[in-house]
Amino acid sequence: MLKNRSLVSISDLSEDDVNNVFLKADEMLGYINNSKKINIMNSKILATLFYEPSTRTRLSFESAMHRLGGSVISMADSKTASVSKGETLADTIRIVESYSDIIVIRHPLEGAALLASKFSSKPIINAGDGSGEHPTQTLVDLYTIRKELGDINDKTITIIGDLKYGRTVHSLLMALIRYNVKINLISPENLRLPDYVYNELKNKLNITISSNLEKYIDSTDVLYVTRIQKERFTDKNEYSKLIGSYKITLKEVDKMKDNSIIMHPLPRIDEISPKVDITDKAKYFKQASYGIPIRMALISMIVGD
Amino acid sequence: MLKNRSLVSISDLSEDDVNNVFLKADEMLGYINNSKKINIMNSKILATLFYEPSTRTRLSFESAMHRLGGSVISMADSKTASVSKGETLADTIRIVESYSDIIVIRHPLEGAALLASKFSSKPIINAGDGSGEHPTQTLVDLYTIRKELGDINDKTITIIGDLKYGRTVHSLLMALIRYNVKINLISPENLRLPDYVYNELKNKLNITISSNLEKYIDSTDVLYVTRIQKERFTDKNEYSKLIGSYKITLKEVDKMKDNSIIMHPLPRIDEISPKVDITDKAKYFKQASYGIPIRMALISMIVGD
Amino acid sequence: MLKNRSLVSISDLSEDDVNNVFLKADEMLGYINNSKKINIMNSKILATLFYEPSTRTRLSFESAMHRLGGSVISMADSKTASVSKGETLADTIRIVESYSDIIVIRHPLEGAALLASKFSSKPIINAGDGSGEHPTQTLVDLYTIRKELGDINDKTITIIGDLKYGRTVHSLLMALIRYNVKINLISPENLRLPDYVYNELKNKLNITISSNLEKYIDSTDVLYVTRIQKERFTDKNEYSKLIGSYKITLKEVDKMKDNSIIMHPLPRIDEISPKVDITDKAKYFKQASYGIPIRMALISMIVGD
Repeated sequence: MLKNRSLVSISDLSEDDVNNVFLKADEMLGYINNSKKINIMNSKILATLFYEPSTRTRLSFESAMHRLGGSVISMADSKTASVSKGETLADTIRIVESYSDIIVIRHPLEGAALLASKFSSKPIINAGDGSGEHPTQTLVDLYTIRKELGDINDKTITIIGDLKYGRTVHSLLMALIRYNVKINLISPENLRLPDYVYNELKNKLNITISSNLEKYIDSTDVLYVTRIQKERFTDKNEYSKLIGSYKITLKEVDKMKDNSIIMHPLPRIDEISPKVDITDKAKYFKQASYGIPIRMALISMIVGD
Repeated sequence: MLKNRSLVSISDLSEDDVNNVFLKADEMLGYINNSKKINIMNSKILATLFYEPSTRTRLSFESAMHRLGGSVISMADSKTASVSKGETLADTIRIVESYSDIIVIRHPLEGAALLASKFSSKPIINAGDGSGEHPTQTLVDLYTIRKELGDINDKTITIIGDLKYGRTVHSLLMALIRYNVKINLISPENLRLPDYVYNELKNKLNITISSNLEKYIDSTDVLYVTRIQKERFTDKNEYSKLIGSYKITLKEVDKMKDNSIIMHPLPRIDEISPKVDITDKAKYFKQASYGIPIRMALISMIVGD
Repeated sequence: MLKNRSLVSISDLSEDDVNNVFLKADEMLGYINNSKKINIMNSKILATLFYEPSTRTRLSFESAMHRLGGSVISMADSKTASVSKGETLADTIRIVESYSDIIVIRHPLEGAALLASKFSSKPIINAGDGSGEHPTQTLVDLYTIRKELGDINDKTITIIGDLKYGRTVHSLLMALIRYNVKINLISPENLRLPDYVYNELKNKLNITISSNLEKYIDSTDVLYVTRIQKERFTDKNEYSKLIGSYKITLKEVDKMKDNSIIMHPLPRIDEISPKVDITDKAKYFKQASYGIPIRMALISMIVGD
């Protein structure tokens, strides 16, 4: 049962919890597709506290709450906040909890959501805390595989791009431990998974590490592409070279097997050619759209009656 | 029928479409004046995507959606958006369309709304695209004339101010082609209508061009005043001189005939003396208020059941 | 009756008005505590116009409106507003009044809310106008004392901190004239109550002025702590010394009598040790939470049917 619980880390959820969220998301998807009105959240308020901008994530939570019939109050930008007067996060949370029924927090510092959950009597959802976690993104990722391929088990998942700094990838890998999957990690050498993440995973997941996508692409069920963050590179030439060798184009798509899919947490910059968008393998916009039923499911399970 | 259609340009609407919007706006005005609750948009979400600030326009769309019983998600400022990570407009639209039922977009670049409508499976309303169009403003302008003077036909409409850069004026003139009107265009020589606009209109509209308001003011039914944009002038003295000779004061109002009206798309800076506000000719705040029934009409016709 | 009236200054309210607001707030608190849905504001729109950032105040008004079943449109930041094009406040108000049923305004200039109320046909609530007033904060302060101590009369209220610049303190003192209270004002000499405020109050309130809290703490019922604004000090050493001698710690709490309480308008910086938070005297977060029933009461009395 998720009732009144905070969601700080994907590991807060048992296997049963995750399955229940997926079943509830299926139900929500039904409502969305039939434009059916649901008023589960009538009179309830969701607060979005974003200490760093993330329009997509904020809007997806707000849309989910509105679809449930609830209301939203929003701090979209901490620069217009009391924060600038020097207020601590703990104080802000203890005030905002009296204005709302559930709080979604995004913060540049790892651990911020956990701290918030300690001080709040209302449930907290972590919408990303620096290099920490972003558990609802991970649920969306798992749900997308399940919806598009029927099951997460027995799949080969190839993750390509920036594996060093990508919070999304670390959380997804932690969550995949529970499933019987084969993992290929493809990245330039200097953007490989950090040792502390790899050591945690190596005995629990079947992982292959490589710099070469070609070798693995035809056996891949899920090609999970991540953004290589330009801002990490001081040498722009190096960035251009890199992005060139890891870009997914129609050439790569042609090598992929039937029923395989391409995912991306978005925003995408140059990692996937726009020509790929119209192929039936491109599922990244579908993936983004699953953010709504997943977040509707979570909110309704946490604060619904 | 406007059902599920985008509104990018005023020319997307047939004469019948425009008349139907006006009839629906009349109905909405009735609801507003009686504070009657209408729940047409129950469970529907409008997204406002503003890539440049325009509080008035954004708030008027959001107010219209709320009056219809719907919900709103909002990106009020692109600086707090994924845009800053380099995401393309096409990608942003394909994500936001899964969060909402209709998208209102404001963008500094001409053609942005058209591009958005090509990529979106949900209807797009153009709320201004650079030097391009702002079709709902044009509908509000036409509706104001119709409400305040009974009819648009057989009127003399004198437009004064910045006719060179004023997007509002160009759209209004294009829309007036369909009516039997006499147009006087009054501006300093260096702010006259651009040739490409004039050439498009000269055979379809009865247009007189002049630098002198005095000659035309007593035959005018609608005096449409526009803002002379200070930021266009490098020489501040030149601006002051100009604004001085085109300012509407009580002296000008006295020369206007009975039942004539003064309009302005607002914001107003120095073009109309505040003393004019209390005269019965001043209709610019009324005009702004008509933004609500017009936008309610459009939204309900586009996404209503 | 508050119906359709603006609230610019706490002195706009008679003693009866204040009592009626408190009774209505009690009713609202009952709804909140039972998560009972109230749809008094169905189809009504509250506009928040914030010309300077104040997330807490804005969110509390918006939360109150949502709890009443109403909708909200919001200008959270004047930098993204028509204001930046040079529009006057009077013009903005005359436009926004046609988008909404009640307007909450925050402005850096004293008198802005009064000006807005003169031009608006819809009720205005002042949410702080520079060094002027913030009447809903004052109502929240009075309501907190009444709820936590049963009555405002016959209490000793010790106010400590920045009494010179603190708008909150000036408004609270003006409001306390109506009650039989004893006031101690504790501050460093250079942050004492300005003469023009003191002269207004000295014959109407029983006031003692001191720099020494110790002498008054054991007879205090309400210790009202305010923030000493760091930004007022050019010499940071002086600030540190000051804050050191006026900080409330467990040592001070120990000297306070039974049933006495500590209040603070928040945000708090260094004035109260976090260790005080868990004592039963700490009521500042409770005080913040009373912002919701008080604002629900006001909105419903002003624009409810």
